[in-house]
Amino acid sequence: MITLLTDFGDAGYYVGSMKGVIVNINPDIQIVDISHTVSPQNIEEGAFILKQVYHYYPEGTIHVVVVDPGVGSARRIIAVDSGDYIFLAPDNGVLKYIFEDYADYRVIEVNNRKYFLNNVSPTFHGRDIFAPIASHLSLGLHITDLGEEISNYHKPEITKAVRKENKITGQVIYIDSFGNCITNISSELLGSKKEIQIRIKNLVLSEIKSNYSEVSKGDVLALLGSSGTMEISVNQGNAQKQYGLRVGERVVIEEKRKKNKRLKNKK
Amino acid sequence: MITLLTDFGDAGYYVGSMKGVIVNINPDIQIVDISHTVSPQNIEEGAFILKQVYHYYPEGTIHVVVVDPGVGSARRIIAVDSGDYIFLAPDNGVLKYIFEDYADYRVIEVNNRKYFLNNVSPTFHGRDIFAPIASHLSLGLHITDLGEEISNYHKPEITKAVRKENKITGQVIYIDSFGNCITNISSELLGSKKEIQIRIKNLVLSEIKSNYSEVSKGDVLALLGSSGTMEISVNQGNAQKQYGLRVGERVVIEEKRKKNKRLKNKK
Amino acid sequence: MITLLTDFGDAGYYVGSMKGVIVNINPDIQIVDISHTVSPQNIEEGAFILKQVYHYYPEGTIHVVVVDPGVGSARRIIAVDSGDYIFLAPDNGVLKYIFEDYADYRVIEVNNRKYFLNNVSPTFHGRDIFAPIASHLSLGLHITDLGEEISNYHKPEITKAVRKENKITGQVIYIDSFGNCITNISSELLGSKKEIQIRIKNLVLSEIKSNYSEVSKGDVLALLGSSGTMEISVNQGNAQKQYGLRVGERVVIEEKRKKNKRLKNKK
Repeated sequence: MITLLTDFGDAGYYVGSMKGVIVNINPDIQIVDISHTVSPQNIEEGAFILKQVYHYYPEGTIHVVVVDPGVGSARRIIAVDSGDYIFLAPDNGVLKYIFEDYADYRVIEVNNRKYFLNNVSPTFHGRDIFAPIASHLSLGLHITDLGEEISNYHKPEITKAVRKENKITGQVIYIDSFGNCITNISSELLGSKKEIQIRIKNLVLSEIKSNYSEVSKGDVLALLGSSGTMEISVNQGNAQKQYGLRVGERVVIEEKRKKNKRLKNKK
Repeated sequence: MITLLTDFGDAGYYVGSMKGVIVNINPDIQIVDISHTVSPQNIEEGAFILKQVYHYYPEGTIHVVVVDPGVGSARRIIAVDSGDYIFLAPDNGVLKYIFEDYADYRVIEVNNRKYFLNNVSPTFHGRDIFAPIASHLSLGLHITDLGEEISNYHKPEITKAVRKENKITGQVIYIDSFGNCITNISSELLGSKKEIQIRIKNLVLSEIKSNYSEVSKGDVLALLGSSGTMEISVNQGNAQKQYGLRVGERVVIEEKRKKNKRLKNKK
Repeated sequence: MITLLTDFGDAGYYVGSMKGVIVNINPDIQIVDISHTVSPQNIEEGAFILKQVYHYYPEGTIHVVVVDPGVGSARRIIAVDSGDYIFLAPDNGVLKYIFEDYADYRVIEVNNRKYFLNNVSPTFHGRDIFAPIASHLSLGLHITDLGEEISNYHKPEITKAVRKENKITGQVIYIDSFGNCITNISSELLGSKKEIQIRIKNLVLSEIKSNYSEVSKGDVLALLGSSGTMEISVNQGNAQKQYGLRVGERVVIEEKRKKNKRLKNKK
């Protein structure tokens, strides 16, 4: 099975020609589209979407990610074997969460032109390199046949939310099609404190709700979303539009000091 | 075979993770995307699209509909066996046309957690409940293993066009990607009268045409569309934009009194 | 294998019902979506996308193209056998590049209603004619069973770039989702001259680059794109938006007169 995650858009010939190359080499392969509407050249967005989906697929799945602003330049293409999956992507950090999720994996620089199409366009490696390589891998080709193992691949740091005493500082890292603003503040970091104050832009919220319907239609809430982190949402509405939020927006959570604690301090 | 109809959008990780869960349980299943761009939380639109497509699929197809503004709330999830198909959807009326089309069917409340993913997110039942249930059904699980049969499921009334003497009153119920405005006025209700006057907003039309090309490019017309009801369209244009039409817009059709009939009345 | 290329959009019931009809007739068929977001009724765009993708597919693939502004009119539906592929499309020129690419092919007018759905809507031949015909073809039906061979099919001229002495005049024929403006000026026509001046709108460029990264982020460049013709692009940006370019925009390339040549002429 091959999955495709790209920024090629649903229009045009890019996805259709990639699929043609794949099925021409392996007509029995099952291709699953993750999404082709990653924002153009948005490596962060591609990395986040991949992180959310890859582990739901059967062992042996080949995940192909083509968000590739450096196509045609000296940037490398890498194949990563994590034991249960193979990932094929440009060496631009789009696999950063994979490198975080696995303790042990191998990274191969893809440069064996034997498995490329004959004429490689400098602007469309998705069709001319990624697609044929993925399809050959699905037929049993081993990633060590693609090139040499490397250790100096691109592994950008992941922007994490931080806790400092009773204050957590994080940010919005993804906004979905409903306008839900997904932060990098995990349930583990949040803990189970109930007495909190959440601030983002001009919004102040005082609670983590369990689901959308705990507030009225059109009202804003914070809740633990399906990616395992805190989200800012509007019940049956669009938080992004309603509050002008965007990726990168800072989120601060402070634990409220309890009155009895304050009294204790006074002693 | 499993079909998917959702409002998750083509971007993001929602559809990709649903598909992962499905193929992980049943790698041989064929998944067909109906559409993932139902307007967010628009139950009416989801219901209409389902009605138009489900019956073209082979017997035994499992139709999964996730347009679910109440996700995580006390709203139920239902599995419906119509004899030829199984439908899996939130109990919010999105299956209303199925209940209308079939005289006999069974509705099961889905609550056997054995077939859910281990951790069910309160915001993403598509991935954590609908996907694994659908995939298990495709492997032969019987819907009676999912929960108890219920009779108090949500069955909203369908807004129908009405005829009163020589006047039919209906409305636009769906607008497609070309801007064609599909009404709820069926060919049966229209009958074969040719001498009519159709009014919608400021538009007055005097005929039901047979196809777009009977008017000039850019001109408006009424015709019987592919869903079996009257549509307001513009030949090679966009009726919605050209006339500012929207879902819910009232349409009135009056039979013109014929002159010879009027003369008769005078006698 | 059946591929689908339409202007039906990703929303709505059109694509979903076509697929239902196809799999109902041949449940084992593999359907590949090329794209469903060809601009509404844009035959040129559909023709261009088809040209870019069809030849990557395995021999025997049935390519179905439904960009059909004349649906329901007297326009014909044609099936074309090119030896390696079968093409099914309205007779409106959307196959013009196929007629150019092949020296030898057969064109059949599709009119054997035996393989149509029972009720053919005048507005949706995609579902009622194209889908069942394609699926029957995938089961082994021969195109000569669909109707008679014809020679007077629609074969519009292809707008080609022209060279006149040291000047090439072409135009933008497609703009992709990244805003890259693809012209009809092929690498063969360009030749290998390096001393050139490229003019499009107010832009003047002096070179064909090899890939995006040869200019800084945000800078404009001309390069040979993945369709084999010259493109106007912005590195990690959107040339269409940045320079207000559109399909049909004229592009002129002039070979620069070299100084030593001019000196010679003076003698």
